[in-house]
Amino acid sequence: MIIQLENGTDERLIQKVEEKLSPLKYEVTHVKTQFGDYLIGMGKKQFDIRGIGHLEGIKDIHIVSDDYQLVSSKWKVSNTVVHLGDDVAIGCGNFSMMAGPCSIEGEENIMDTINFLKANNINIMRGGVYKPRSSPYSFRGLGIEGLKLWHKMAKENEIKIITEVMQVSQIEAMYDYVDIFQVGARNTQNFNLLDELGKQDKPVMIKRGISGTINELLHSAEYIFSGGNERLLLCERGIRTYEEASRNTFDINAIPILKQKTHLPIIADPSHGIGIRDHVDAIAMAAAAAGADGVIFETHCRPEEAFSDRQQTLDFAEAGRLINKLNRLKEVI
Amino acid sequence: MIIQLENGTDERLIQKVEEKLSPLKYEVTHVKTQFGDYLIGMGKKQFDIRGIGHLEGIKDIHIVSDDYQLVSSKWKVSNTVVHLGDDVAIGCGNFSMMAGPCSIEGEENIMDTINFLKANNINIMRGGVYKPRSSPYSFRGLGIEGLKLWHKMAKENEIKIITEVMQVSQIEAMYDYVDIFQVGARNTQNFNLLDELGKQDKPVMIKRGISGTINELLHSAEYIFSGGNERLLLCERGIRTYEEASRNTFDINAIPILKQKTHLPIIADPSHGIGIRDHVDAIAMAAAAAGADGVIFETHCRPEEAFSDRQQTLDFAEAGRLINKLNRLKEVI
Amino acid sequence: MIIQLENGTDERLIQKVEEKLSPLKYEVTHVKTQFGDYLIGMGKKQFDIRGIGHLEGIKDIHIVSDDYQLVSSKWKVSNTVVHLGDDVAIGCGNFSMMAGPCSIEGEENIMDTINFLKANNINIMRGGVYKPRSSPYSFRGLGIEGLKLWHKMAKENEIKIITEVMQVSQIEAMYDYVDIFQVGARNTQNFNLLDELGKQDKPVMIKRGISGTINELLHSAEYIFSGGNERLLLCERGIRTYEEASRNTFDINAIPILKQKTHLPIIADPSHGIGIRDHVDAIAMAAAAAGADGVIFETHCRPEEAFSDRQQTLDFAEAGRLINKLNRLKEVI
Amino acid sequence: MIIQLENGTDERLIQKVEEKLSPLKYEVTHVKTQFGDYLIGMGKKQFDIRGIGHLEGIKDIHIVSDDYQLVSSKWKVSNTVVHLGDDVAIGCGNFSMMAGPCSIEGEENIMDTINFLKANNINIMRGGVYKPRSSPYSFRGLGIEGLKLWHKMAKENEIKIITEVMQVSQIEAMYDYVDIFQVGARNTQNFNLLDELGKQDKPVMIKRGISGTINELLHSAEYIFSGGNERLLLCERGIRTYEEASRNTFDINAIPILKQKTHLPIIADPSHGIGIRDHVDAIAMAAAAAGADGVIFETHCRPEEAFSDRQQTLDFAEAGRLINKLNRLKEVI
Repeated sequence: MIIQLENGTDERLIQKVEEKLSPLKYEVTHVKTQFGDYLIGMGKKQFDIRGIGHLEGIKDIHIVSDDYQLVSSKWKVSNTVVHLGDDVAIGCGNFSMMAGPCSIEGEENIMDTINFLKANNINIMRGGVYKPRSSPYSFRGLGIEGLKLWHKMAKENEIKIITEVMQVSQIEAMYDYVDIFQVGARNTQNFNLLDELGKQDKPVMIKRGISGTINELLHSAEYIFSGGNERLLLCERGIRTYEEASRNTFDINAIPILKQKTHLPIIADPSHGIGIRDHVDAIAMAAAAAGADGVIFETHCRPEEAFSDRQQTLDFAEAGRLINKLNRLKEVI
Repeated sequence: MIIQLENGTDERLIQKVEEKLSPLKYEVTHVKTQFGDYLIGMGKKQFDIRGIGHLEGIKDIHIVSDDYQLVSSKWKVSNTVVHLGDDVAIGCGNFSMMAGPCSIEGEENIMDTINFLKANNINIMRGGVYKPRSSPYSFRGLGIEGLKLWHKMAKENEIKIITEVMQVSQIEAMYDYVDIFQVGARNTQNFNLLDELGKQDKPVMIKRGISGTINELLHSAEYIFSGGNERLLLCERGIRTYEEASRNTFDINAIPILKQKTHLPIIADPSHGIGIRDHVDAIAMAAAAAGADGVIFETHCRPEEAFSDRQQTLDFAEAGRLINKLNRLKEVI
Repeated sequence: MIIQLENGTDERLIQKVEEKLSPLKYEVTHVKTQFGDYLIGMGKKQFDIRGIGHLEGIKDIHIVSDDYQLVSSKWKVSNTVVHLGDDVAIGCGNFSMMAGPCSIEGEENIMDTINFLKANNINIMRGGVYKPRSSPYSFRGLGIEGLKLWHKMAKENEIKIITEVMQVSQIEAMYDYVDIFQVGARNTQNFNLLDELGKQDKPVMIKRGISGTINELLHSAEYIFSGGNERLLLCERGIRTYEEASRNTFDINAIPILKQKTHLPIIADPSHGIGIRDHVDAIAMAAAAAGADGVIFETHCRPEEAFSDRQQTLDFAEAGRLINKLNRLKEVI
Repeated sequence: MIIQLENGTDERLIQKVEEKLSPLKYEVTHVKTQFGDYLIGMGKKQFDIRGIGHLEGIKDIHIVSDDYQLVSSKWKVSNTVVHLGDDVAIGCGNFSMMAGPCSIEGEENIMDTINFLKANNINIMRGGVYKPRSSPYSFRGLGIEGLKLWHKMAKENEIKIITEVMQVSQIEAMYDYVDIFQVGARNTQNFNLLDELGKQDKPVMIKRGISGTINELLHSAEYIFSGGNERLLLCERGIRTYEEASRNTFDINAIPILKQKTHLPIIADPSHGIGIRDHVDAIAMAAAAAGADGVIFETHCRPEEAFSDRQQTLDFAEAGRLINKLNRLKEVI
């Protein structure tokens, strides 16, 4: 149950609600986000909302049958739009594109990418400065200094930045240089990281776990929302299956299912979703046709020289063709 | 290695080729289909094709590195088109649609469906008369009499029939009443059935196994082709994964991967691929956008009364809207 | 619901039961096996068994809540023992072993194996004469002539034969030469084959499907039982997962779960279950410790020269050590 | 390549080795653990170890072909034994048992468990004080105060503590009260946590990821070892598959495969591995028979009242019987 509160609600209202609900064994959690105040009541008994509906300070009450609450589509009238400033927004009906290299590699690499994005009217750039690597001996990214350089160049060119945060202790240092924090597939259930991102007022894109369920992804989003941050995006990036012909199995089913279950924007990552450069465009097109709110994909001036993910990174010519195809598709759907 | 032979090749040529190849430990199989003669050489050693290329009766020689041969895209100049007669063809560039109930239920059900198909310019009807059921106590289909009735009505209305054959002994009785034999997901590796269908001259659509790999699907097609039947379609219908939010996980990656690996037409089954009526359209659109040659989906006058697959069957209004959307999408792609 | 009938029940009793049950929308199936007569009632409504319990000819009535019935452990007092004649039986409490090559290769190969088995007090030999192969160009087994030769030699040495049957048309020819028909992992849901094996009075061992669920395996057994054949064994042989370090993932959980759900004997196939020669013994031991009724494993005089499955076949020294270890383990459990 | 160094090696040796290896494009990492000094050379070219073998300060050089190095069994003469003090050790040939509740619940719960363990000669107690929960509204554990209480009681009774650490910032506070840090299945690839645990000198048990591969588990261990901490245990706890009859699929294959690939002790967690109370004993026995070095399982005075994991927790009578069975089995193996 979600109880939406009026602004400036005082503690006494919360106490009154708890008094009504605790005899029914409901746990009440007070959630305060950048946009509103909510009381979440978790319990199993039937409850007549008229018992509290009249209390002053209550804006609305919603019975949500899902085991996640605030991210459920069942209570919100309209879908969430995530605004990034400068008229850049995700989820407002126009298909969003984010692109860039797997890893941020240095000044030239950043400039090349920015030029490509601007030439194609794309205003969100992806790239990693902290790289989760299965082997401790692999390249782990340029770190905070790389992010600062990137931010300076991106800002000058009015490009927004999305990049992965791997642990709680990085958040503070990264905060000023990031437009969207990305939670990677290996951290979808790093609950301490989710808790901490709930305290931030910057948007967060959560990738589905390597073999995470749709339900778990929604619960991870509930962590951040209930921690206080409503500005959330969800990202389908392929799941682990027995099939070895592709790196992951892009779960196209997840797109319409998530669109129905949640009010949050759904982004597709076709690069990781199939992991084969020749076929990234087909999966991007499929995701758009299935109703995704946007795509995030890997592109690089010279993919064969990229620091990582070479086999799934588009060169700029390929990326340009994909952008054109997506633009044409948008008009039909 | 595929050696294409001229028509009317005599045994002596085959002997000559075998004499050249057997010292290299190549196994040679002679394949004779409705369209051509081939010798398939399976071996590991490097081989200089000039050693046999000059022999009279040899049209062309192709080195195919895949472990499947005749279904590989590596040797055929143009993609396979499967003609069904009366100007109905699959794989010729125009997106094909096949629709109908899960099970054929009787005269009224057939007539309703035919009327719907004709009103929407669809000329291939799906439906099961032999139903594979996990429980022996479930409805197993109307059988051959149902097929005969269906065929009579379909023929009068210029509708083609695709239906599942479950075992070798059914083929002969079904032959006159079927336009496309379907091999179901539980029979993808029923090799005796594949062998026998290789001897037929009617088209066969092979569904991917419930947890079959892309490679296994291609091998199953190789069985039928090498048995003598080139008129083949492959069908992606979702695979079994850990995700419980959908009946199967539609493997959208399989569409572009198969399109690259084989010259055969690729059909998508969004009904089984997601198994949720509300979302069949999203998956059909995605498959089309990813490059599929057609779709096959379940529709019924009153899905809630259908004998089987109620939860994933579209009613005619929903199916009509999907057909319109697919037609609009076709024009962009 | 299972209604056990007295021997010599006449049609009138069945009619009476149907009259009682049909108003409750129960489907009644009459099952007649080599050991007994049953009426299976499938329906959802609560039913007071006293309404029919008094009828003459009814031995007992069992309410079984599972969706499989006759193979459920919920109605049978004692576990099934499958007798093969000559005092060889499976499921009677003493751990059974079956061993032999993947493919039957010829006289010498058969003799070598028989000698090994006799030296180790094993009296059931496995081997394939019809081999399901994913590629049509691979060796497909010696066929019926191989089986006849094998049978002659086995009979002289009092060795029982278990071998795979791939299709309905093979059953009759194989019948005289087989002690246990094996249904392979690709045929677990070949329902026509199951139907036909239900009409036989020889034991059948059903392997779990390549990615079959435990529930599907039980339903496949229900097919054969309800077709008339109670002499059944179930075999866990590993399932398909994302893990590539082993050929399959042996589902050890299936052993205790199946032992609880069904009265049928459970056999483990560690050779396919892990697919790595070095580790077959560990999995065999684990299966025995988990409560399996027996194992079936691959052994060959010279595994490196075997026609198939070389990488998972034990040589006779390794097999001998495993048999000793299993015998020691038996005493503790 | 692993280059073992003599104690007290100075920087000049490292420089010399780097000078030899860098022309071959080898990356050299200096690893200093509580037990030794190593140089890890990662590269692809063949290398003649005689070129550096004579250098003073080099104890031994091992060419390891795996992509993990220090945790590989290919260079270590004997398997790792993890000593916990007071003559408690894991991996020394005698099967280890660890047991306790899912969550630490309070003084009575701790005392009950300790009494049970002592009565059964078990000296390592498991229990969670920080609980990873998929929903933010669930009980998250007693935290550090719960751990302090537990530690006080455990110390008085000579019981060792294994408990999960969820994030870097918890390590310091937990350090004094923990005998083995556990890395949970959702954190197997939390590389920052692994890095930090590499700097500790207390043992760490790493659980396999929810759908982690065997290879990824070994790489995660390599992170900790190369960070400086050799005192490692690996834990198989079941993987995520399509099978719904059990909570997870315990990968029994992983036991012998890991025993062959690494010198680290392998622990089995049958409670999570099957997730069904009735069958925990069968899986524990199977793991022991397959060669595991120990088990960790959940037990509680009154499982039906436990704060979490009720469906898979043994009561003390069941746990006592399991311990007896494992002790009998140990004698045979």
